[in-house]
Amino acid sequence: MEIREYMKIVMLGAGNVGSYMSRALDTAGYKILQCYSRTGKSARELSGLVGCEACTDTRDVRRDADLYIIALSDDAVVGFINSFSFPKNAMAVHTSGSLDMSLFKDRIDNYGVFYPVQTINKQAKVDPGSIPICIEASNNEMLEFLAVLAGQIGSDHYHLSSHQRHVLHLAAVFSNNFVNHLYYIAADLMEKHDLPFDLLLPLIEETAQRVQKEHPADLQTGPAKRNDKMIIKEHLEFLSDNEQYKRIYSELSKSILILRDKHRDK
Amino acid sequence: MEIREYMKIVMLGAGNVGSYMSRALDTAGYKILQCYSRTGKSARELSGLVGCEACTDTRDVRRDADLYIIALSDDAVVGFINSFSFPKNAMAVHTSGSLDMSLFKDRIDNYGVFYPVQTINKQAKVDPGSIPICIEASNNEMLEFLAVLAGQIGSDHYHLSSHQRHVLHLAAVFSNNFVNHLYYIAADLMEKHDLPFDLLLPLIEETAQRVQKEHPADLQTGPAKRNDKMIIKEHLEFLSDNEQYKRIYSELSKSILILRDKHRDK
Repeated sequence: MEIREYMKIVMLGAGNVGSYMSRALDTAGYKILQCYSRTGKSARELSGLVGCEACTDTRDVRRDADLYIIALSDDAVVGFINSFSFPKNAMAVHTSGSLDMSLFKDRIDNYGVFYPVQTINKQAKVDPGSIPICIEASNNEMLEFLAVLAGQIGSDHYHLSSHQRHVLHLAAVFSNNFVNHLYYIAADLMEKHDLPFDLLLPLIEETAQRVQKEHPADLQTGPAKRNDKMIIKEHLEFLSDNEQYKRIYSELSKSILILRDKHRDK
Repeated sequence: MEIREYMKIVMLGAGNVGSYMSRALDTAGYKILQCYSRTGKSARELSGLVGCEACTDTRDVRRDADLYIIALSDDAVVGFINSFSFPKNAMAVHTSGSLDMSLFKDRIDNYGVFYPVQTINKQAKVDPGSIPICIEASNNEMLEFLAVLAGQIGSDHYHLSSHQRHVLHLAAVFSNNFVNHLYYIAADLMEKHDLPFDLLLPLIEETAQRVQKEHPADLQTGPAKRNDKMIIKEHLEFLSDNEQYKRIYSELSKSILILRDKHRDK
């Protein structure tokens, strides 16, 4: 009998990652036994989507599951692991980019990490082909199982240590969270001058497309890269009513220049 | 007789924008009479591509053209406009995001700006549908002509004042040049810890895709947005061997927090 035919899964968390992963597992033929969310609405919504029980109190989390997937906020992951009595032979993973696997130590024998490297939202279509999953486990059998699981939901997997996962998470903050904030600043500047943000969308798309094939070091352009002091000065004057934008402009320009000079010295 | 059948164009510059625009105009049925580049190799390459004369000395630029397109570096645009004797009835445009249209004043009667909002490289396939063009002109007839010209090479056009174009250019620095540098920092962090940058590519693509449909203010996630002080502290410790990356991390996080608090107060 195939593992997915008998394995019972409890999903802790019905937020973006929890919902997405539940649907992906459901689609792959796994049985979600129960989902937990602090908020009743989220729990009910997810239970409706994948046909499972719902609960809103961690004391009601079932103890007869084979796999616990903890897709809660970082604080709540720690709280749950420290308070829940895992059944002896079960497996447990968390889905956090920034928490150590060792949190599970002494709480359960078979544990690991199952971290999707993607900005996931609840409504996203289940198309996990584009979601690499980083796995880590307390033993080889568990590691192998997580690799298979990733494949079954259509994802590539990467075996990363907790330390490497921290680096990855930090790099993701730069290339996702911070990039989105730069988009926001661009939109803000445009809107304040009655210009449609839409004008920048093809440029934004192309910038992200290019880096899929070439290294960003080879793609850098702009006033800082050219060390065009006149334009940089003009831009900073333009930003004079927003000290924070000015500081961001200065620090990023300085960093581009440092890099340029480093490459020149070689 | 249609304008593109008799209009003779001189292209100043055979770099990324000059090459791309020459090929787009050639494809649209326009005749490129001559191209100029400081470097013989670029001039010859472009002349071969669109079948036109090439020259490498501005003193050899022909004076019998109908339209001069100045796609040079900003410094060189200024130099060319101030030294060239434009024929009385010709039109001239530059393609810069950051130079005022008024540079042409007293040098020629019919002038304007034809600025493509895209990061263009020489090899790019001529597919200008995704390249919005900002136009500005010294008179209505010229403005109308530039709008038609943009349409003929398949681009949407936007009529922007020089001031608005400066804002757009600054916003493009944030959403293209600075974004690319954040990609670089992410790649650098990954590579220093033996992690493949490829792991981040789906995330980068998705981040740029999302903003095509939703406003970046609604898409912000990450430790700064959650004001997750523990993670932010950890990340800054991680970056302790690179002061510049640390400053960028701090300033961007601070800016995300300022924004979050502003929205909260509303």
